[in-house]
Amino acid sequence: MSVGVHFLRVRYAETDQMGVAHHGSYIPWIEEARTEWMRERGMSYRELEERGFALAVTNVSVRYRQSAKYDDRIRIETRITVRNMASVTLGYELYRTDEGAEERGPLLAQAETRLALLGPEGRPTRIPEGLFDFDADGPNI
Amino acid sequence: MSVGVHFLRVRYAETDQMGVAHHGSYIPWIEEARTEWMRERGMSYRELEERGFALAVTNVSVRYRQSAKYDDRIRIETRITVRNMASVTLGYELYRTDEGAEERGPLLAQAETRLALLGPEGRPTRIPEGLFDFDADGPNI
Amino acid sequence: MSVGVHFLRVRYAETDQMGVAHHGSYIPWIEEARTEWMRERGMSYRELEERGFALAVTNVSVRYRQSAKYDDRIRIETRITVRNMASVTLGYELYRTDEGAEERGPLLAQAETRLALLGPEGRPTRIPEGLFDFDADGPNI
Amino acid sequence: MSVGVHFLRVRYAETDQMGVAHHGSYIPWIEEARTEWMRERGMSYRELEERGFALAVTNVSVRYRQSAKYDDRIRIETRITVRNMASVTLGYELYRTDEGAEERGPLLAQAETRLALLGPEGRPTRIPEGLFDFDADGPNI
Repeated sequence: MSVGVHFLRVRYAETDQMGVAHHGSYIPWIEEARTEWMRERGMSYRELEERGFALAVTNVSVRYRQSAKYDDRIRIETRITVRNMASVTLGYELYRTDEGAEERGPLLAQAETRLALLGPEGRPTRIPEGLFDFDADGPNI
Repeated sequence: MSVGVHFLRVRYAETDQMGVAHHGSYIPWIEEARTEWMRERGMSYRELEERGFALAVTNVSVRYRQSAKYDDRIRIETRITVRNMASVTLGYELYRTDEGAEERGPLLAQAETRLALLGPEGRPTRIPEGLFDFDADGPNI
Repeated sequence: MSVGVHFLRVRYAETDQMGVAHHGSYIPWIEEARTEWMRERGMSYRELEERGFALAVTNVSVRYRQSAKYDDRIRIETRITVRNMASVTLGYELYRTDEGAEERGPLLAQAETRLALLGPEGRPTRIPEGLFDFDADGPNI
Repeated sequence: MSVGVHFLRVRYAETDQMGVAHHGSYIPWIEEARTEWMRERGMSYRELEERGFALAVTNVSVRYRQSAKYDDRIRIETRITVRNMASVTLGYELYRTDEGAEERGPLLAQAETRLALLGPEGRPTRIPEGLFDFDADGPNI
């Protein structure tokens, strides 16, 4: 399974009075990384929703290693860690990255989200062959 | 027009690295105050939406006077300032309030939102007689 | 260990276009519940910070069972699940609660946060005897 | 005064149950645009803070014209509209932009923030000659 790589910067609004990014800010970050990871693999999440499907987060966990600071550039790696009939688990690694650089700096956090595919009636649905077979010919939902 | 009074506390996640509540946090606060102001007047915003209507914010402005800090208790006063055919403007005053007290402490901010009523097709709609006549017998949309 | 019980309402800003509370919103909710749980036990988190200490979240996990909706009243139960030398793990259960009721409705989510105590230099610090012994005479940091 | 141009995408977490970006989301967006506008002009806001200064938002206003949707690419233009001794007012225009395009699509919103410069003691401070003279040789605080 190929790894997605996405970069973003810590917003001022995402810091808290400890002087670092609030731990809750990581959730929208990994969601943004997931969106871009899907787009690069030919499956826009927006389109998926327009076809009546949704990926509902059923579990999320984050392990914080080092603080992220305001204006830090963060590199987020996204990969599939588990694949089941009706759910897929994605793992994320977040690294600080130097200005202008693309390589991994220090590891800031590791995260995981389990996503269930919901069909047009909002019910859990079997993930179609090919939806997350990104090494193959792209999704074919 | 009667004034609504609502209390809330500044969340840790709402602070930023200046050590005060981030200025963007005030938007959800006045929205929460507006929800409670409507509920107390017999018009639940949730019900309004369930009937196919929506109040869309077309303008917002906030003037910050003093900082709000983590764990501060905030008293928000809500009142109608302007009423038109298809929109209503609400004014808010935010005060810090001592632990256990109900009275106004120092003024922290003043805000205003203009709200347009949207009908079931998402189009601006004339505000029904009575919807914001809260001194009368309650809303009758 | 005694259980803390806290109530809050889902804000409009906390919903997303699936029509339910965004999964990231639960993080500030359990943080608010934790703040109130500490206050009721005689240990204001604000005071803890003013004395130079901090509780840093090192791990967070949430398991979502049912969706929370806009304007839902949520009952959050907070309790200690694990206690170590330099960290404490809190468990949370989130229930929907009927208007005006205090009892548990359906279980919406379960969450856990591990918190490390940081001393004045930002280093992990042994948790003083008594800080989380809430069944005893209150904290004595 | 030169105009800054910044692009971002609407996050899923920034939508609400009306199916559009929540009106409060625009505040962090224009803050991000302001940060990039300053960086491009040789004045990192992070550095400004490290030198003991801060730009405090004293007023914010937003006028919403059209909704922004999930995954929309937004083009934000930033420019100085008023300059005083101790404050500067920035104006922002937000446009939807087609995938891969850089040009302005439909106007979504106009916003304004007034910023006061605070010195090391947190007091309003005269803005040094050159700090916002971005057409000249860059800031020289």
